[in-house]
Amino acid sequence: MEKHLIAEDITQMQDRYRRNFVNALTGFKSLNLVGTIHTTTHQTNLAVFSQVFHIGANPALIGILFRPDSVPRHTLENYENTGYCTLNHVQASFYKQAHQTSARYDYSEFEAVGLTPFFSEHCKAPYVAESSLKIGLQWQERLDIRLNGTVLVIGSVVEVFLPENCLLEDGFIDIEKAGSITCSGLDSYHNTQIIGRLPYAKP
Amino acid sequence: MEKHLIAEDITQMQDRYRRNFVNALTGFKSLNLVGTIHTTTHQTNLAVFSQVFHIGANPALIGILFRPDSVPRHTLENYENTGYCTLNHVQASFYKQAHQTSARYDYSEFEAVGLTPFFSEHCKAPYVAESSLKIGLQWQERLDIRLNGTVLVIGSVVEVFLPENCLLEDGFIDIEKAGSITCSGLDSYHNTQIIGRLPYAKP
Repeated sequence: MEKHLIAEDITQMQDRYRRNFVNALTGFKSLNLVGTIHTTTHQTNLAVFSQVFHIGANPALIGILFRPDSVPRHTLENYENTGYCTLNHVQASFYKQAHQTSARYDYSEFEAVGLTPFFSEHCKAPYVAESSLKIGLQWQERLDIRLNGTVLVIGSVVEVFLPENCLLEDGFIDIEKAGSITCSGLDSYHNTQIIGRLPYAKP
Repeated sequence: MEKHLIAEDITQMQDRYRRNFVNALTGFKSLNLVGTIHTTTHQTNLAVFSQVFHIGANPALIGILFRPDSVPRHTLENYENTGYCTLNHVQASFYKQAHQTSARYDYSEFEAVGLTPFFSEHCKAPYVAESSLKIGLQWQERLDIRLNGTVLVIGSVVEVFLPENCLLEDGFIDIEKAGSITCSGLDSYHNTQIIGRLPYAKP
């Protein structure tokens, strides 16, 4: 049976029900731990994000969508103040720790959940040593979305760490082989199984 | 073995290699067919997008990132002119047709790839009848990203069609059960297999 809901049905949903519903609507999402560091206290911060997306390949640009009035505020502040953050793909081996970073801690989530910070000379922010695919980003542009107060920050890729055997001849990264997982809604985690790659489409 | 690339390595990549590489970096992506219609000729248009993301739950807002200088230009024009588009989750049963919509046709991609347009009274744009999860969007705000000329358009959800047995008690939509698939890079399609759902995280 097909169910049909209109805008008014969504407006009348209970808050938590609506959050679950709308967050699942767009489909599967990327799953990254975003690492940052405070500019003066040097306290590291780690937060799980499903709102990370490709903006462009040349130059290589990646966007992160922030909710300024909710938990991951430190991430946005640290990213803005230091100019750097890291993206770390989540694998099944530490998905529970990744999820747990969304709790409110008053000390570093690295320590709280038991993941290991790793620093590189090209990026001021900490990486997650356990992650097989790691990306350093440098702050480029902030776009404020007036409709709901969210903030899109676009960063440029300063470096990438990845398993050598996951980088294919044509530049494609086999992230499934690298163990990267995906998520849906606010709390559902999924492995993937490849169906196929398709050639460039022509009429 | 871990491979390490810095920004300069990415700049020096051959174009197609870099496109494959950078498009895979962020992780798994949502996969939707975006349906639109021309305001005067009424020609329908269908294009596959992996750049569709959740912007907010209340009000329910969804963003689509457009490259104005490439193939799916008609989608942006039609969406802007009519004020409506549809999102249609892709299932494995028609992923080849979905991919094929990225070829340049001078007539409707519905006809070209063999998918069926379906209209609802709440939305001017055509849905894909074959898709199990369908969302109608109304144009709300356009943000131009100066860094690379891409355009983020945010729409509000006007209606949703979904399988009744995929809507759980807490509002979560089991999109894996609905058959929705995910993608990585520009051309790799993947089924999913749930690892688990986790409760709201507390310290």
